[in-house]
Amino acid sequence: AFQDIIEELQPYDTGVIYQQLPEKHKVRFLTYLTIEQLTALIQELNQELQLEVLQKIGVEKSAKVMDRMDNDDLASLFDEMDPEVKSRFLAKMNKEESTAVQDLMKYEAETAGRLMTNRYVWIPQEYTVREVVDKLKSFAELAETINYLYVIDEEKRLVGVVSYRDLILADAHEKIQEIMFSRVISVHVDTDQEEVANIIERYDFLAVPVVDDEKTLIGIITVDDVIDVVIQEANEDIEKLSASGKDIDFDTPALVASARRLPWLILLLFIGLISGSIISGFEDTLGTVVALAFFMPMIAGMTGNTGTQSLAVIVRGLISRDLDKKLVTKVVLRELGVGITIGITCAVLIAIIAFVWRGDLILGMVVGVSLFFTLIIGTLAGTIIPLILYKLNIDPAIASGPLITTVNDILSLLIYFGIATAFLSYLAP
Amino acid sequence: AFQDIIEELQPYDTGVIYQQLPEKHKVRFLTYLTIEQLTALIQELNQELQLEVLQKIGVEKSAKVMDRMDNDDLASLFDEMDPEVKSRFLAKMNKEESTAVQDLMKYEAETAGRLMTNRYVWIPQEYTVREVVDKLKSFAELAETINYLYVIDEEKRLVGVVSYRDLILADAHEKIQEIMFSRVISVHVDTDQEEVANIIERYDFLAVPVVDDEKTLIGIITVDDVIDVVIQEANEDIEKLSASGKDIDFDTPALVASARRLPWLILLLFIGLISGSIISGFEDTLGTVVALAFFMPMIAGMTGNTGTQSLAVIVRGLISRDLDKKLVTKVVLRELGVGITIGITCAVLIAIIAFVWRGDLILGMVVGVSLFFTLIIGTLAGTIIPLILYKLNIDPAIASGPLITTVNDILSLLIYFGIATAFLSYLAP
Ligand SMILES: [Mg+2]
Ligand SMILES: [Mg+2]
Ligand SMILES: [Mg+2]
Ligand SMILES: [Mg+2]
Ligand SMILES: [Mg+2]
Ligand SMILES: [Mg+2]
Ligand SMILES: [Mg+2]
Ligand SMILES: [Mg+2]
Ligand SMILES: [Mg+2]
Ligand SMILES: [Mg+2]
Ligand SMILES: [Mg+2]
Ligand SMILES: [Mg+2]
Ligand SMILES: [Mg+2]
Repeated sequence: AFQDIIEELQPYDTGVIYQQLPEKHKVRFLTYLTIEQLTALIQELNQELQLEVLQKIGVEKSAKVMDRMDNDDLASLFDEMDPEVKSRFLAKMNKEESTAVQDLMKYEAETAGRLMTNRYVWIPQEYTVREVVDKLKSFAELAETINYLYVIDEEKRLVGVVSYRDLILADAHEKIQEIMFSRVISVHVDTDQEEVANIIERYDFLAVPVVDDEKTLIGIITVDDVIDVVIQEANEDIEKLSASGKDIDFDTPALVASARRLPWLILLLFIGLISGSIISGFEDTLGTVVALAFFMPMIAGMTGNTGTQSLAVIVRGLISRDLDKKLVTKVVLRELGVGITIGITCAVLIAIIAFVWRGDLILGMVVGVSLFFTLIIGTLAGTIIPLILYKLNIDPAIASGPLITTVNDILSLLIYFGIATAFLSYLAP
Repeated sequence: AFQDIIEELQPYDTGVIYQQLPEKHKVRFLTYLTIEQLTALIQELNQELQLEVLQKIGVEKSAKVMDRMDNDDLASLFDEMDPEVKSRFLAKMNKEESTAVQDLMKYEAETAGRLMTNRYVWIPQEYTVREVVDKLKSFAELAETINYLYVIDEEKRLVGVVSYRDLILADAHEKIQEIMFSRVISVHVDTDQEEVANIIERYDFLAVPVVDDEKTLIGIITVDDVIDVVIQEANEDIEKLSASGKDIDFDTPALVASARRLPWLILLLFIGLISGSIISGFEDTLGTVVALAFFMPMIAGMTGNTGTQSLAVIVRGLISRDLDKKLVTKVVLRELGVGITIGITCAVLIAIIAFVWRGDLILGMVVGVSLFFTLIIGTLAGTIIPLILYKLNIDPAIASGPLITTVNDILSLLIYFGIATAFLSYLAP
């Protein structure tokens, strides 16, 4: 009866129940579950809890669960394990499954090869619809329940795709060759995961087949894993734009979160000191006209803000577009146009405000002209730095918001105090 | 022959071809397409190009295409149209379809109601497998090709779900009631789209059914639209965190992009002037110890940086978690812990640097103690402001990075100059 209740639950909910159980009931709860239920449960837990469950159910049962797990999930779990513990599990696993997951682990992280599963149905093109249905009935438990069946030729090369729905609508004696869709879109096993996500998003696929250099079908990637990729990549961009460090969520302890955030902060602290030494280089100018200090935070801040805006536009734009020379030129010119437009608007505004506030026309002009130039340069820095990083095959989001902000601080102070020093003799002390 | 080529292409690729055609060939190309092909094409284009195609094929053909379009896509298209043009199309459309899309448009934007489609298959629970297959054969063209069939009772209430795969594996005489999964998870029509995305992500569904207050099945939401929601919401968060303004991509003209970015920049300019007036309030302190200015950008910058980090952690965390009092307390205390940890680390570091650089022990202490307090307060501001906004039902991401940065600028200057003024008599001039 207990097993029936579990059977009726979604795996996710079983996972929630497990996490809410008091420690002393967990082992008991696990003994009630079948291998299939344990497999479903474990795929819903985070890696820490996965390891906990494996430890509680013992090596024998664990190996059986691992035989049934999605390869892609098992591979990420093994990545986190002690090599010794890993070999112990691999030795107990079914030979075929352990080879399969070890093959998967050879592919680079964040590529199609690491996302794909071997739980899918492939069918030879010369089968009839009836033969396929019979094959399906015998493999029913194994395959992920996606909508597509991939069709292969004698060399296991991918030649087409049919959906379960096509099977239902076709006559039993028809050959798969005749009903399949043959212009099937696939990805190469080395394709970056963001590119895979783009393809699934673009074509509204529920899965995409993965092939090697010989066009041999070696796996499929399902849309649920692609949603995880989209979320992961967006979080990554936000982490980098905010320099907030990797993988901090509400459950991360304060010391761990601090350790992840500190490297960026310490780097930014030293860069911030460069600003300080620039100001100290203009000590005489500042000592003569203390009012210059009043506009310093505004100018530095605005330059940082426009740089952050450009950076965000570039980083998000690069996700779905390939960069060629034409596009780079277009984007840089566009951002130059933006820099000039916001430069003129803000410069005129601040010149008037500075003049009215301090009653000093030259001060108004110095502040306005400085802001004009710093906004243009800040905008271009926020554009060109991520583009260069992208061309160098470095993730452009690493040019995080705070980094651009800090670089722009330095540029803006140089320009502001440079211009102010040139006009120093005209400024009221 | 031409139609066969088009037939073999993915709709997305037909869209790419259309966009690359020279203007003069576009009308000609469109006349070669069947209504079905036009429908597939139009669903791949952005709204500007959708309107262009509709205009080129005329009202009659357009209405037929609209009859076949996904309701959710058609509703967003109508949103962009002149009311007069919209009524003209609605009048020409099939009565049933025009009512359906008008019903959809009654739901609020960004809710389940606006995402759902009426292109899906529902089946009565008392049907046999054979009856369902027959029904499927007659509706083959209409339904979106997802994997699930939703089962309803006599009142059209949702009672279960079966997959095409279940149908293939079942015997023809079995009743749907016997093979269906009855603990089907659904969303209410008013559910926020982010919540819908969470559910699909969590359960790895390919679609989720939408019900009203009476549990009546009124539509389904498919995973492809959920991927679009995830991308849209991530972009929204990045736009707000970077204050970069809505909907700027590589194709946005410079003037439009400037107009979208300027409101934030002008607001931040005025807030930046508040920093200036704080400094001017401490003019005497600054005039006496000019060296205080050297550390100003670093202190203000660091306070902004830690605030941005906290903000990003909170905004991303809120996406997948509901906030209760316990969690709020936990997160605020955690961030307080982070503030203290990074505060101590950075304060000690900068006190030593300031002392070594300027040879002034008191200056080192003033800068260090100030940084300690500003980092704690900056961290808490970046935590508490978005949490309060969230509680007030305002999107927490509106507390954009630059806004937090600028607020933190003000706080940090007050603390820094406040402490410096208190110790003024001990500081070397
Ligand atoms: Mg997975
Ligand atoms: Mg990547
Ligand atoms: Mg899509
Ligand atoms: Mg689409
Ligand atoms: Mg998977
Ligand atoms: Mg990325
Ligand atoms: Mg990445
Ligand atoms: Mg859609
Ligand atoms: Mg929303
Ligand atoms: Mg998922
Ligand atoms: Mg999952
Ligand atoms: Mg849709
Ligand atoms: Mg949102």
